[in-house]
Order: sequence, then structure tokens, then C-alpha cells
Amino acid sequence: MHVKECILSAPGKAILHGEHAVVHGKMALAVSLNLRTYLRLKATSDGKVCINFPNISTLLCWDLTELKLLVPDTCKKEDGKLLNAELVKCLREFVGVTNGNLDTSNMATLAFLYIYISIFGTGELPSLTVTVWSELPTGAGLGSSAAFSVCLAAALLCASGAITAPLRESEHTARWCQEDLELINSWAFQGEMIIHGNPSGVDNAVGTWGGMLRFLSGKIIPLSRVPLLRILLTNTKVPRSTKVLVAGVKDKINKFPTIMTPVLDSVDAISCTCEKVLSEMTHEPITGEHYNILEELIDINQHHLNVMGVGHPALDTLCRVTLARGLHSKLTGAGGGGCGITLLRPGEVIYTVQDLRDCGFDCWETSIGGPGIQQHSPHAVKDDILEILNHY
Amino acid sequence: MHVKECILSAPGKAILHGEHAVVHGKMALAVSLNLRTYLRLKATSDGKVCINFPNISTLLCWDLTELKLLVPDTCKKEDGKLLNAELVKCLREFVGVTNGNLDTSNMATLAFLYIYISIFGTGELPSLTVTVWSELPTGAGLGSSAAFSVCLAAALLCASGAITAPLRESEHTARWCQEDLELINSWAFQGEMIIHGNPSGVDNAVGTWGGMLRFLSGKIIPLSRVPLLRILLTNTKVPRSTKVLVAGVKDKINKFPTIMTPVLDSVDAISCTCEKVLSEMTHEPITGEHYNILEELIDINQHHLNVMGVGHPALDTLCRVTLARGLHSKLTGAGGGGCGITLLRPGEVIYTVQDLRDCGFDCWETSIGGPGIQQHSPHAVKDDILEILNHY
Repeated sequence: MHVKECILSAPGKAILHGEHAVVHGKMALAVSLNLRTYLRLKATSDGKVCINFPNISTLLCWDLTELKLLVPDTCKKEDGKLLNAELVKCLREFVGVTNGNLDTSNMATLAFLYIYISIFGTGELPSLTVTVWSELPTGAGLGSSAAFSVCLAAALLCASGAITAPLRESEHTARWCQEDLELINSWAFQGEMIIHGNPSGVDNAVGTWGGMLRFLSGKIIPLSRVPLLRILLTNTKVPRSTKVLVAGVKDKINKFPTIMTPVLDSVDAISCTCEKVLSEMTHEPITGEHYNILEELIDINQHHLNVMGVGHPALDTLCRVTLARGLHSKLTGAGGGGCGITLLRPGEVIYTVQDLRDCGFDCWETSIGGPGIQQHSPHAVKDDILEILNHY
Repeated sequence: MHVKECILSAPGKAILHGEHAVVHGKMALAVSLNLRTYLRLKATSDGKVCINFPNISTLLCWDLTELKLLVPDTCKKEDGKLLNAELVKCLREFVGVTNGNLDTSNMATLAFLYIYISIFGTGELPSLTVTVWSELPTGAGLGSSAAFSVCLAAALLCASGAITAPLRESEHTARWCQEDLELINSWAFQGEMIIHGNPSGVDNAVGTWGGMLRFLSGKIIPLSRVPLLRILLTNTKVPRSTKVLVAGVKDKINKFPTIMTPVLDSVDAISCTCEKVLSEMTHEPITGEHYNILEELIDINQHHLNVMGVGHPALDTLCRVTLARGLHSKLTGAGGGGCGITLLRPGEVIYTVQDLRDCGFDCWETSIGGPGIQQHSPHAVKDDILEILNHY
């Protein structure tokens, strides 16, 4: 079986408002983060499947004959909410992670093999090389695993013919139709299940559809139109445990219910107000007042997150350093360190990036609200990324 | 008429929780601040009335014959909620502030003359010298004018025989009975009306009764028992306008009602929780957990005050510098600069005072929840203060 080459990319994810509150039945706004994960699928004829994930030092090759032995007797190709437990077990043995020691490299490998075998298992296994390069830091709560899974799902579904590559000749970039995106998303969710165990589905939805989505009580509702907003993404590089932070918030709510419940209500109202303002920004001329409100919402929510106890001195530093330049920041995701976002106005020149790097932080100028999974012509991919993708 | 000498003192006031929220129908907790205003009343026989307020560079003497001309025809001696407008007008002319230019010195002089003339106007005016010295900074929202008015009212009521000096021989310090305190408070409120125009009555109530009181919808309810808590009081010396800050909070509530209303509810719950914990501390053995909760409440409220927009970088610095020593701080009063309080645990050694002075702040180690107006024997007054009181 001979497959078509393709290059595609999927965005990361940031929580704009509602992190932690979402655990307690409130709404969260998740947005695409335009730090993207790129995947190149190359057809080969050497009877091998190779994966190259240089970000996580993973370069592996298998003979098709090896992989054929992994195909389960009853291979389910349809999308589903449940993993094929037999296949997972078999793949874990194959990769050698039966002891439960799943590092990032093992998890990425498992996710690839699971989707590859599941999609192609009913027919002939194709010889191919998949190279992935990401602009996203891993393990920072920015949906890097979801962007990876979305890319894998789209590339392998395309290669199998389940969906059609959307890029026409003369086009630089193209998107899939809604039906194909649904299929990509459902397979990406399986990748997320392999990697995360019990994912919310938000990250892969953002990676697939891009833009912004509302997440409430387990339901994911993509928003029709949102403006593209410039931001700084800052990684304080302070390590934290999401599990410990979530438990801490729960304890605080139990300890001070009359004090904390209104704070969650206020966060919910922030998310609603933000969604309303962003919607207005797509329907009417954007004014400074729109940005004033977005900045006020960021400031208020950051204070609320501090009330929940998920702040950190490094995040305080981020807020202080950016405010000294007139910019407004909040943590994004679990907090307790990790990443923060800083809103930029259109055309604003950014002096603060160096200030933040001087604090020892990683800092990227990027945007939120951009497109989800896309196919690219090689000409549409930045040279340095194309070089990495072509290197293998 | 010959009056008895006395020395007395009244405490300042700090808002523990509920500043700003109280403007919007929520509860506030006001506490006595053990930075005190001292007053010495000395009987003289030179037919003069002299006032010496060295904190505010006010040293004035009048002949009794001059002052007699100010006594209105119908002099009301009873306490009341309304000022004698005729007397106020007449005194303003006498002091020379008809142009409305009321500085601190003029206001203190007016308040003295108003209470003096009102209390003694129906009988013989006594020859006396009143010296006042305060540990409180003026204009910092710490109830310095109320402590002044309470001292004036108590001293002049004692001198007139309307109440009896409580100090017995052999005693160092004594308090008035409840009925006398009511009278002192009502006259002090008149002094506050002269100085502030439209006072809430909280400051003079704290100066009179000390301890802590609950303030809700204009009603003032003293709490029966509260523990004495050690604090640092820090004056950032950043000037601010209470009126502008209050208006800013109102605007923010109008702009974001669904976001801000829950914040006020949370502040209300903080005040209730704090009152409950402080009450427990007087009924059961005080534990570290009591202090843990008080600290958490301070932190949460400080974040809420930032949400209301009444924070200031200098207050952020106060919080950061004290937290670096494991101490928890919040602004007290109007915010936007001004003063902050830092809770200390019993026996805690304070390294942070110097840190704060290095930031350019004034800083006092003091306590909250102490007694209201007291009479002292000279032996019970610190030497440096006694020296100032005796200097005139």
C-alpha cells in the first residue's frame, strides 16, 4: 500500500478563563494557542514504519512484519469512547512498558502505534515515516499531547483514505470539512486516552477546531467566531502537580464554603463576560474599550486564582513585570507555577519579552483563537521547521 | 470654676475586614488600634483657655472673656445627632475659616471650641490647658480625629462634672462605666461631625469602647469579647483620596455586576468567619489553626480588595516583603496606598519591621482589640509621652 505525503499542523491550547472553577461545575473558555505541532508523513517503500519525534528524543523504526503481529483479531476501526484494551495491553508489552513506567517518549510511541494499527489493521499496513516537531513545551498544560494526537489522527486517516487531504494545488494551507474534523477529533481523543488516561476532550477539540470553545460540565461547545488575539505566552518553568493544586482548591472550598463559592460564581461571570466581549469584537469595530475590558477580566481572574491558592511568586513576578509595561497577565491552566498569558494590543511593540527572559522565564510572542488542524504545502511552513521535518 | 486635672487616652481604629464592601450593605469589622492619642487637662487660674496640639503645630490661647462672647443664647448641652449650626457658624468666624479652608489645625481647634462651649456654656467657663499628643499619623484613615474627639469629650465632660473621673488612688488605669461611655461617645460624635461633616460614627465608637465592633447598614454593634492580637501597622505614605476610591469601586460594580456582586458576598463571609474565629479564641485555647485561618482570611480579602481596584504597588510590596518572613498583610481602610496591617503570632520575633522601613514605609509594632478611652495616673504613661504632655 502506497500512501500520499502530507504536512500538517495543529495548535496548542490555553485556558483563557475558568481553570479550576470548571472542576466545580463552572464554565471554562479554552482557546487555541498558535504555538503549533507540525507533522510530516512521508511514504516509503522499505517495508518499515519510522517515527521521529526529536523534541522528545524518540527515533524508532519497525519492520512491517513485526507490526503485523500486533494487529488484533477483531480490529475495530470505528471511532469510539473506549480504547481497545487488548490492543493497548499488547502494545505496552511490545514497547516494553509493562512496569507502568510511561515517560513522554513511551506514551507518544504507544499513541502512534495504537492509532496506526487501529486505522490500518483491517487492511494492508503501509510503509511510512512520520516526523513530528512542536513549538510547544511538553508537560506545561498547553495541550502538546493533544496537538500531537490530532496531527497523528489527521495524517493517518488521510493516509488510509478515510478522509481526503484538503489541500488543492496552488493552495498553501487548507482545512478539513466538519465531518472529517469530527473523525479526526474522535481518533485524537483515543490518542489522548492513551497518553492521559482520562482526558476531558477539551485539548483535542481545540487542536482540531481551533478558535475558542466553552467547556461546561463535561460538554464542549465550539464558539462560532472569535477574534485572533495577540498574546505573550510565558513559561515560568516552576514545576507543579495539577493533581495537588486541584485537591488544594477543593480543600479550600470545603474549609470556607461561604467565602469560596461566590469566588467561583465570579469566575463563571468572568468567562461569560469574556465570551460576550469576544463575540462583540467579531461583530463590531474593535475599540480600545474592548481591550480594556479583556484586561480587567484578566486581572480580576488572576486575583481569584490567587484566592484559590493556585498562584505562585513566579506568577506574581510575571504580572508585576508585564504591568510595569502596561500589560495584563494571568496564569493559564493549573497554576502553582507553569504558564501565564499576557494580552497584547494590535500593533503593540513588545519590550517586555526580554524583561521576562531576564527573570529566567521562557517567553513566546504568539496568538490565541487561530485555526485548528491544517494541511500545508511545504512553501507555507517556516524554513527552520521544514528543515527539521525534512531531516529524517 | 476650678477643674480637676486628668490624663487620658483613646485608641485609633483599623478596619480588619469589610472596607468598601460596607458601602454596599455588607458587614465591616472595625477594631481598636493600640496607637493611642493622649490628652492632659490641666487646671489653670490665669483666666485663659490654652490648647496645645504639637502633632499638628497648633498652640493657641484665648481669654475667657473672649470665649464668653461665643456662647449662644440657647445653649444645648444635651447630646444629639445634630450640631448647633448657629454655634458652628459663629466659631468658624471666630477661628477665621469662613472661606471654607479647613486644615487639620483649624478643624481640631473648631472641634475643641465646639465641645468646650457646648459643655460649659450654661455655666461658668473654666480656665484650663489641654495638651494632646498622638501616636497616630493623621489623615491615614486610622481614626486619629475620633481618638482626639473621644479624649476631648471625656476630659471636658469630667471637668464639667457631667461624668466622674474613674481613677481611684493606687490605680494606674481606669475605665468609665457604660452610661458615661455612651455620653462620651455622643459628644465625640459631635466632634467628628465638626471635623468630617458626615462621619459614620464607627471611629468614635471604637475610640470609646475599644475592642471590636460590627458595622452593618449604619448600625454599630460592639462585640462582647475579642482577643488582643499583635500586628504591625505599616503606613506606605502613598497619598490617596477615599472619595475617588469609593467611587471607583462603585463604577466597577456597575460595570461588572455579575462579577463584582459575588466578590462583595465573599468579603461579607470573610468578616463573618473572622468574627466567629475571634469569638472562639476567647472561649477555647488559642491554637496555631486559629492563626492559620486569620491569615488565610487576610490573604483572601487582600486579593478581593485588589479586584475592587483599591490596591497599590506599595501595598503589593508590603504583602510580598512580609510574606517573605511568613507574615500575612492586607490594606486597611480605603486602600490605594495608605496603611496596611500585618498579623503577628504571639511571641513572634519581628525581623520585617526593618525590611519595611527600608521600603520607605513607616512601621509600628502594636496591637488590635485593646481598650477604648482610659484614664491614667501619670505613672502609667510612657515617659516620652508624659514629657510632651507636661511640656506645655
